[in-house]
Amino acid sequence: MRAYDIIKKKRDGLMLNKEEISFMVKGAVSGEVPDYQVSAFLMAIYFKGMTERETLDLTLEIANSGETVDSNLVGGIKADKHSTGGVGDKTSLIISPVIASLGLKVVKMSGRGLGHTGGTVDKLESIKGFNSSLDFNKFISVANKVGLSIVGQSKTLAPADKIFYFLRDVTATVDSIPLIASSIMGKKLTAKDDVIVLDVKCGSGAFMKTLEDATDLANSMVKIGKGANKKISALITDMSEPLGNYVGNALEVYEALEVLKGNVKNDLYYVSRALSSEILYLSGYGDKTACDLAFDDAIKSGKALLKFKEFVKEQGGDLSYILNGDYKAKYSLDITLTGSGYIESINAETVGLACLRLGAGRNKKEDEIDYKAGVILYKKVGDFINEGEKIATIYSSNESLLKDAKQEFLSAVTLSQTKNLVKDKVIKIV
Amino acid sequence: MRAYDIIKKKRDGLMLNKEEISFMVKGAVSGEVPDYQVSAFLMAIYFKGMTERETLDLTLEIANSGETVDSNLVGGIKADKHSTGGVGDKTSLIISPVIASLGLKVVKMSGRGLGHTGGTVDKLESIKGFNSSLDFNKFISVANKVGLSIVGQSKTLAPADKIFYFLRDVTATVDSIPLIASSIMGKKLTAKDDVIVLDVKCGSGAFMKTLEDATDLANSMVKIGKGANKKISALITDMSEPLGNYVGNALEVYEALEVLKGNVKNDLYYVSRALSSEILYLSGYGDKTACDLAFDDAIKSGKALLKFKEFVKEQGGDLSYILNGDYKAKYSLDITLTGSGYIESINAETVGLACLRLGAGRNKKEDEIDYKAGVILYKKVGDFINEGEKIATIYSSNESLLKDAKQEFLSAVTLSQTKNLVKDKVIKIV
Repeated sequence: MRAYDIIKKKRDGLMLNKEEISFMVKGAVSGEVPDYQVSAFLMAIYFKGMTERETLDLTLEIANSGETVDSNLVGGIKADKHSTGGVGDKTSLIISPVIASLGLKVVKMSGRGLGHTGGTVDKLESIKGFNSSLDFNKFISVANKVGLSIVGQSKTLAPADKIFYFLRDVTATVDSIPLIASSIMGKKLTAKDDVIVLDVKCGSGAFMKTLEDATDLANSMVKIGKGANKKISALITDMSEPLGNYVGNALEVYEALEVLKGNVKNDLYYVSRALSSEILYLSGYGDKTACDLAFDDAIKSGKALLKFKEFVKEQGGDLSYILNGDYKAKYSLDITLTGSGYIESINAETVGLACLRLGAGRNKKEDEIDYKAGVILYKKVGDFINEGEKIATIYSSNESLLKDAKQEFLSAVTLSQTKNLVKDKVIKIV
Repeated sequence: MRAYDIIKKKRDGLMLNKEEISFMVKGAVSGEVPDYQVSAFLMAIYFKGMTERETLDLTLEIANSGETVDSNLVGGIKADKHSTGGVGDKTSLIISPVIASLGLKVVKMSGRGLGHTGGTVDKLESIKGFNSSLDFNKFISVANKVGLSIVGQSKTLAPADKIFYFLRDVTATVDSIPLIASSIMGKKLTAKDDVIVLDVKCGSGAFMKTLEDATDLANSMVKIGKGANKKISALITDMSEPLGNYVGNALEVYEALEVLKGNVKNDLYYVSRALSSEILYLSGYGDKTACDLAFDDAIKSGKALLKFKEFVKEQGGDLSYILNGDYKAKYSLDITLTGSGYIESINAETVGLACLRLGAGRNKKEDEIDYKAGVILYKKVGDFINEGEKIATIYSSNESLLKDAKQEFLSAVTLSQTKNLVKDKVIKIV
């Protein structure tokens, strides 16, 4: 078998068999297929696409290209939610303790943020002492004891994805549904979950800007999951404005705690409920109404909050600082608008970039994060705002960053004199 | 400027400007644009093509990516023929002395053979003592004195083409008209010829198997040449059977000498005449009839043969061995067919591969050549052959290679009981 022939076959729009896909993935990892052949292969896939079967084969090869996590060592139904990434998206911090408190097991490996989107591991690491690098035995024992453990993705996880992603990023082959779907699901399938619910974000702050693209991606990923014998579905949720009212690592942990305490019932609450409910439903918990009510009850009863605290403590974290209000950076700037009206849009990507500018995220993998930097939004799309009224406060540990970030934030907002219909955040289910 | 954006632009089918093309070519040579970006770029070109203007810009960048030959140091009209490569194609050995004997200057850098096609430099090096590595001053002085000098392509010639060609060869992006045309013309334009006539081979032994592809390539190359202010045209000539009756390095020099002596007037004679005549015509020698007659006269008068001998001598070669019949390898095998009939085809590529097997060519760049290996054909397409009559003799310095090569040669030949129309070797002019 030769890489040349496989590239040519894909170039000519022919379907690759499992062995050919395996050859390319294994060759990319071993170095036997050099980068310049891999990148030409990726460009050929960009132009010619992949069938469902090819995409599944590619995904499974990626998943098996490195270490996998034998979460069979954890008893019970293992379930996970996976988001394609957004701004202010802290639903994992709510869903995980909720479903764990209801008896499911969450054995989660999570990513770090890059660019304008945040990562769950970074958010958790904003909790003093939280250890996201548990060794495997500890990871499994926490999951067995608490029903919930979250660690960072190991370096040996899906190495093929790292190579493909690096090459796609520099060769303009990122925007390809089979390549995106196999990258996300390839990493996801390294864990042995029984139930997976995908949160495919759609809108200005998401990777998929249009509902059509988001639907295509969701369909492709759900088919992969089914092909790998998972109980799986996808919700397409809105990411045209940030989710919830807090963006930034410690700020998002604070907001998640507010939801877990039952103090707020905002869009974050309802998106978290829809995703949790879907997981419970696929896990056989009951009908959809029963699943919705189970979520409400897990919050109201305080069980989910208790589970979250237990989980953080087991991984060495000390929540007292955040619970006592120490989650905002030293320097801040209130933001007001000139003019009044209904808020028509708060571009999520722009808010994410403003937070990046404040120090809340990473431009490059190696960047350090200012955990308490970020933004608190007092208004959301559809709200009326008066001239001079605060729309947001931005925070940073570096005072000199505030001014530019404010300008960036302001560019995210548009006003309207008429109130538009505020759409449901859960757009559809795939 | 970033390679990423340029790849993306081409991927999206947009036209690249001169600066963008220059950035990619210079970056490929300097290493600033890594191979994996270059190969993705080439694949994007494969799918999206290039306009005439882009192809010209690419060609000129390739031509100027390394050393160029300032053949302005040679006075008079500089003319050259360039073939896209075939089997038994020794027209350069005939055309060059003919046009030099008629006052044009041939200052030629020529390639080596690879795979089933031969290279002019290899053929010349089969002449004892012939030096194809003259230093620049000697090269120019021979050209000025004799009107004809031929050297091998220097390693510093069009380095961008070497990189592109290497990557295309392993990423299935060879079959792209703008990439083929810019590769051929990029090398060609490193010399400062005034007149260029292209011999675009078409058929089983050629890179372009169909007339349509050959015409597309010819058109593209002629447009590039005109864009670079050359007097240029292309003949599309048949390469479905080998040209002439001898294939192999010393064997081809022998056959060229036979034509130069006026001893044979076969297809090789007429293709050489058509190409020479076109060069003379573009050089302003006279009308096409006058140019044809000038060729005949250069042969008949012995002037072309004299010019060839002079040229070989100036470059250190001793033709006496070949003239005395020492051009065939020690071991040989006569080939006869079972059955009789009209020869319907002698697949040129297969004959080329049989010669490669005999040692006459290179599988890899580093391979040594058996200069006296090859084949003599006694019959050509359209001839009648009786059972047991010799169609060919094959030669090799390694007796053990003969048997397999015979089988390969036999697979090249088909017979027919009816005589098909034998087509003219010069198919059309572009």
